[in-house]
Amino acid sequence: MSEHPFDADTRVDSVTDDTFAATITDRWNAIGGRPNGGYLLAVCLQALRRVMPFPDPLVASAFFLRPTLAGPAEVRTELARAGRSMATGTARLVQAGKETVRVTATFTDLARATGRTLIVGERPHLPPAESAMDPLGGRAMAGLPITERVEYRTATMPGWMQGKPGGDPSMQFWMRFRESREADVLALALLVDAAYPAVMEIGATGSSTLELTVHLRAHPAPGWLACRATTRYVIAGSHEEDFEIWDSNGTLVAQSRQLALLT
Amino acid sequence: MSEHPFDADTRVDSVTDDTFAATITDRWNAIGGRPNGGYLLAVCLQALRRVMPFPDPLVASAFFLRPTLAGPAEVRTELARAGRSMATGTARLVQAGKETVRVTATFTDLARATGRTLIVGERPHLPPAESAMDPLGGRAMAGLPITERVEYRTATMPGWMQGKPGGDPSMQFWMRFRESREADVLALALLVDAAYPAVMEIGATGSSTLELTVHLRAHPAPGWLACRATTRYVIAGSHEEDFEIWDSNGTLVAQSRQLALLT
Repeated sequence: MSEHPFDADTRVDSVTDDTFAATITDRWNAIGGRPNGGYLLAVCLQALRRVMPFPDPLVASAFFLRPTLAGPAEVRTELARAGRSMATGTARLVQAGKETVRVTATFTDLARATGRTLIVGERPHLPPAESAMDPLGGRAMAGLPITERVEYRTATMPGWMQGKPGGDPSMQFWMRFRESREADVLALALLVDAAYPAVMEIGATGSSTLELTVHLRAHPAPGWLACRATTRYVIAGSHEEDFEIWDSNGTLVAQSRQLALLT
Repeated sequence: MSEHPFDADTRVDSVTDDTFAATITDRWNAIGGRPNGGYLLAVCLQALRRVMPFPDPLVASAFFLRPTLAGPAEVRTELARAGRSMATGTARLVQAGKETVRVTATFTDLARATGRTLIVGERPHLPPAESAMDPLGGRAMAGLPITERVEYRTATMPGWMQGKPGGDPSMQFWMRFRESREADVLALALLVDAAYPAVMEIGATGSSTLELTVHLRAHPAPGWLACRATTRYVIAGSHEEDFEIWDSNGTLVAQSRQLALLT
């Protein structure tokens, strides 16, 4: 079986102890015709993971500085601190001599986390994925390669897809890789940014991410992922988007927030 | 009139073009007996602002690597990219040769932001600040210097302060500098971290921040600031805390999320 596109397209090869070669593909291009920000974050985390004494990103913050294009890139890593249970470092994605993305992340071993658990938030309210609707009608959207890689299930057809934005920039849906590969923690870093922006429901035609912070809270169980995306504050053209991913066991596994500009 | 403690304690002096000297004081010590994370973020932003072509932080992410103590410190800045309307860079707070905080931030000119505004979230529901309760009874809390600098007003006495945590890690309150100084955008970066953690209401005795991201959305109007702090997911000892600050005009001016560990 050939390598899954997520693994193939986020692979990094050592150039020196702290620098890695990557190839950014156009297979995760999203609205705007550029590689998805979550995909670029995942590439940076793959490189950082190679210099970290712990396997799992726990929190990562990505600043998108310039457009990143399909083609060769370099990831330059730097370890800021390695402690007994956590380590933090920065990765810079560089193309043609220019830095396009800067990621800082803290890694840990999620399997060794201990302590109290208390869940106040509710998981998304969705019909079972098997009986939910595929808003894309079983195929990818033309010109949107990320929809060849990721599929979605919704309770009802989103308003904006019918040319009638519903007015509420909030949505719940199922998500998974279209080709058979279960999501792991690294994949969650991509998936928090892999759906259409919630602001499409208020008539926006696109959104450009300035910064994306993701918290990886647990290893996801196999199966469909229940997601919730919410924007509450559009102010003078900028907006936050909060995103949650819950696994098939009903565990919150990832939580993200981004600041983006309406385009 | 003497300089307000916020201005005095976040002042940085040029050492070289990109390095600044700061003095961390113990006047913002919070629960845990250490300088408040928001205060350290504000010091780093003061330094970054000096190398930025724009005046206002729009989004900032701080990773807390090691404890920072009262005493001299250095802030080393680096500009990652300066564009036409935004610029991004990193500041490292260094004490005794060790990096304790790493901040990456994008600056802009908030007064020049244009574009759509749409508010879905609701501002905190609070009685007028003038008739609300001072949960500290008009004085600072012993051993908690930050309460000498910041004051609060609540609708009712918080349960944890009566030794009876209410069980809901969510709270709303008014906040302002105790001594007469209005909050500006830089002060908001401190204030999002200047209240007691919402997890006190589920019986936690403290919380240690790993990472704090703040979005500065608008210049605040003078007066009391209405705040909302919410934790929804405590998982194996880690929890997020979301924080909103609304100004006296009813405008959302800051939004933050942190990932922290129960202590």
